[in-house]
Amino acid sequence: MAQKLALGIDLGGTNLECGIVTEQGTVLHRATRPALPERGPAPVLDDMAELIETAIRQVGASPDEVVGIGIGAPGPLSHRDGVIYKAANLPGWENVHLLRGIIKRAGLPATLENDGNAAAYGEFWAGAGKGANTMVAFTLGTGVGAGAIIKGELLHGHFENALELGHTIVDPGGRPCSCGQRGCLEQYCSARSLGRRAMEEIERGAKTSLTERVEPGKSLGSLPVAEAARAGDALACRLWDDACRFLAIGCVNVQHTFNPQRIVLGGGMSRAGDFLLDRVRFHLDAQKWHLHSDLPEVVLGQLDNNAGVIGAAGCALRSYADGVW
Amino acid sequence: MAQKLALGIDLGGTNLECGIVTEQGTVLHRATRPALPERGPAPVLDDMAELIETAIRQVGASPDEVVGIGIGAPGPLSHRDGVIYKAANLPGWENVHLLRGIIKRAGLPATLENDGNAAAYGEFWAGAGKGANTMVAFTLGTGVGAGAIIKGELLHGHFENALELGHTIVDPGGRPCSCGQRGCLEQYCSARSLGRRAMEEIERGAKTSLTERVEPGKSLGSLPVAEAARAGDALACRLWDDACRFLAIGCVNVQHTFNPQRIVLGGGMSRAGDFLLDRVRFHLDAQKWHLHSDLPEVVLGQLDNNAGVIGAAGCALRSYADGVW
Repeated sequence: MAQKLALGIDLGGTNLECGIVTEQGTVLHRATRPALPERGPAPVLDDMAELIETAIRQVGASPDEVVGIGIGAPGPLSHRDGVIYKAANLPGWENVHLLRGIIKRAGLPATLENDGNAAAYGEFWAGAGKGANTMVAFTLGTGVGAGAIIKGELLHGHFENALELGHTIVDPGGRPCSCGQRGCLEQYCSARSLGRRAMEEIERGAKTSLTERVEPGKSLGSLPVAEAARAGDALACRLWDDACRFLAIGCVNVQHTFNPQRIVLGGGMSRAGDFLLDRVRFHLDAQKWHLHSDLPEVVLGQLDNNAGVIGAAGCALRSYADGVW
Repeated sequence: MAQKLALGIDLGGTNLECGIVTEQGTVLHRATRPALPERGPAPVLDDMAELIETAIRQVGASPDEVVGIGIGAPGPLSHRDGVIYKAANLPGWENVHLLRGIIKRAGLPATLENDGNAAAYGEFWAGAGKGANTMVAFTLGTGVGAGAIIKGELLHGHFENALELGHTIVDPGGRPCSCGQRGCLEQYCSARSLGRRAMEEIERGAKTSLTERVEPGKSLGSLPVAEAARAGDALACRLWDDACRFLAIGCVNVQHTFNPQRIVLGGGMSRAGDFLLDRVRFHLDAQKWHLHSDLPEVVLGQLDNNAGVIGAAGCALRSYADGVW
């Protein structure tokens, strides 16, 4: 029997990433190009189809080896219907029938997942979540995404918008969020929030080495803040610590909600490695309850920025194996 | 074929409740006695067995009609092993093999659930959650319990302690909780927290009609506060409104976590009816996001203080139907 392969696509506001992935979760070929979503869905779908065709050709896969395509995309979206309702970083996209568009172009079956779900499934299937029966993964990127795997299955929810943990309220009446709420978790521990808070302090006249890292017209990310904190910058230390404290609150809330075996911290901010993990664990220890020992293991993701591509491909392989296709 | 019946037991710190319930969720017989858990587990188990025997005799059920026993109890506990690890309101109980004890005494198969889970299953099966595929129920009692039904199944979690939503942190560094954390949801919207906050204000010299409702040595419950608020007492209005605001935050967080079809508000505090529901919906509307229309229906429970007994019996009938027994 020939090996089975799947295409994994990660559609973001900045990049369109494509990988061809084996049943073991190994990436055989990977390509990236700018997403340029402001062009509208059709040209992006054309690019997607081209990336897929190239990937299949590059690895020399035969048609019966490639089982299908998995796409991770920002939501709110419908996994069931393959539609992106709208997305903050795909400006102008509304009710886009993404699945229909790619199936038509590529001539392969396809499945659509929220990007937080896809990344969580990737870590579960081929990364830091391996072997866990119940797992929640945070993707600490521009915002805070998440996904939950319960007994091997992604949780979608009735409105298919579960695990928007970045928008759970942890500070009532707190910082306003672009979603319309106040005090959302992602206003305290995402790359964008770290950068924003640093800029606010700089504008207030704070003395900090971060000032030198600010590029005109660009926002500060989480890693420059981590670097400055590591180097002992007082403001950066305070901001980083505060982000880790809120992330620990997010973990405590996941503990008391899903009570999972493992919590995986992935996404760009997790590249700070132990500098993130140790601080989160410190705050977990300080904030957790003493009623019962049911604290999940909190670990770093292992797939870095491949989690979305691998997870999306994994969802496709799963759909195939389950006979959905 | 004879009809099938199950016993439902609700073990609390104050009362031990027993009902015999049909496959349609109708309670045929119900009895209550003081739990007196300070006597230790054995006498409580003896009482439980006696209530069961009486219930079966009273309805004149034949042995093959009664499929088994469901018990809802405070946790942390193990549904899988039938063990109560410990419980704040069952003082001195530690690692109690409740299931083994009742099976031995009653000679019937039995299943153990966290009381929040049992009540949620009751509402799902025979109450306000009927027909929902994904549902979360809050039990607003002394504390705040909860349970989630996902595609017809209770969520237990890896450590079997899921849905302790009363201990999710919604006010970092806020009011201390007996669990060891700070800012737990149940410190803001449980009966006990309402009573406590009222007492704090009275001690600080607040002028309020609640002063007349305080009985020496007893704590104020949520319903006296609701009544005083209805009658226009300024302090009571403020406290009630604040509890509803936090409960709405709890609902927003459930929305972004499970994205369920329905959220059910049950337990003693829900007896305030629309006075609770309208205020919670008001705060939901004020605090919810504007990104997507995925707000669950928020409704009152329908089973009142029968939710636990009916739900526990429902779990037993389910175990029987699924061939677990």
